[in-house]
Amino acid sequence: MQIAILLYDRFTALDAVGPYETLSRLPGAETVFVAERPGPVRNDSGSLGLVAEKSLAEVVSPDIVVVPGGPPEAVGPHLKGGPVLDWLRTVDVMTTWTTSVCTGSLLLGAAGLLNGRRATSHWLALDELRGFGATPTAERVVVDHKYVTAAGVSSGIDMGLALLGEIAGDRHAESVQLLMEYDPQPPYDAGSPHKAPADLVEHLRARGVPQG
Amino acid sequence: MQIAILLYDRFTALDAVGPYETLSRLPGAETVFVAERPGPVRNDSGSLGLVAEKSLAEVVSPDIVVVPGGPPEAVGPHLKGGPVLDWLRTVDVMTTWTTSVCTGSLLLGAAGLLNGRRATSHWLALDELRGFGATPTAERVVVDHKYVTAAGVSSGIDMGLALLGEIAGDRHAESVQLLMEYDPQPPYDAGSPHKAPADLVEHLRARGVPQG
Repeated sequence: MQIAILLYDRFTALDAVGPYETLSRLPGAETVFVAERPGPVRNDSGSLGLVAEKSLAEVVSPDIVVVPGGPPEAVGPHLKGGPVLDWLRTVDVMTTWTTSVCTGSLLLGAAGLLNGRRATSHWLALDELRGFGATPTAERVVVDHKYVTAAGVSSGIDMGLALLGEIAGDRHAESVQLLMEYDPQPPYDAGSPHKAPADLVEHLRARGVPQG
Repeated sequence: MQIAILLYDRFTALDAVGPYETLSRLPGAETVFVAERPGPVRNDSGSLGLVAEKSLAEVVSPDIVVVPGGPPEAVGPHLKGGPVLDWLRTVDVMTTWTTSVCTGSLLLGAAGLLNGRRATSHWLALDELRGFGATPTAERVVVDHKYVTAAGVSSGIDMGLALLGEIAGDRHAESVQLLMEYDPQPPYDAGSPHKAPADLVEHLRARGVPQG
């Protein structure tokens, strides 16, 4: 089984590494980071470089595709078409699971893969899914057929564990959760627009820039 | 303010990227990945390469140091001494915060920095802290003076948010949590040895290899 994690300039690091840390612990799976060109790919803040091992052309039939998100300047350039969308359309024909974290779902949408499907995204970008024929769904992980979309940044960890359970069984997913000591205890309760202080939510909405 | 995240061969990726994704959003902070030699550093499974921008010699007075963990074959070679421990001892003199995730605390311990302090680590490695004069403390994030140690792998996200709040205030930490949509909803409740099925805990203890 091959798991391909897409990288592109200014992606959000945790969007990619959250699912990586869970899914790469699937027994017998090969995980590969893939980008237009092999080599280091810079994240949104520019201070992190993650190495793409293979070019898009070298990864032709992954079983699972993971598409991380990024801020508008990262995702925007790909939405009109180009090699990234072409690749997503091509590999999706053969995947068992096509997944995204955060605004990565906009790329799946732009590739035409979410038409008529329920999907999620970063809370600040959720409504944009409508433009691709998807039904925006404010849940942390949304599964519709083989399309699994996760909400903002950190939700890729929950998605990865859920997918692990689906593929390798509850026992394996639980052992990965225990080895990752994923017993979250955030020091604040501000992780969703329904829980965070209302004025903070409004402030970020007014700024209007989804961060990853 | 400079935040230095240490990389070394076979580190665990999420140990480094969890704190990175939170702490790098500190206003005005520069975040730098540092290793014995600049260039890509491979993680524990070998399929992820994260770029170290600078060598240890180039990072002489970071304000915050983050030490990720890794499995025994990653951490072990450094415990007896060498450039990594030398660097930790040197920069610690000037840091405001010296932190670790997972078995990264064993490196802090081996450097002599946790003597007489409360500290935590991956649940499978917690008792090893005693050998460095520390008091093993089974909490997710342990703060003792300027030494902040976090439990296994995913706990670095909680540590990063707690530290953000400490440094930049609750409001800023909450805005980062909201932008990261960190509203965890693990599909299982198996993230700590007190919550996971007892036979699974025993099985992993018997195997005896902390994963990251």
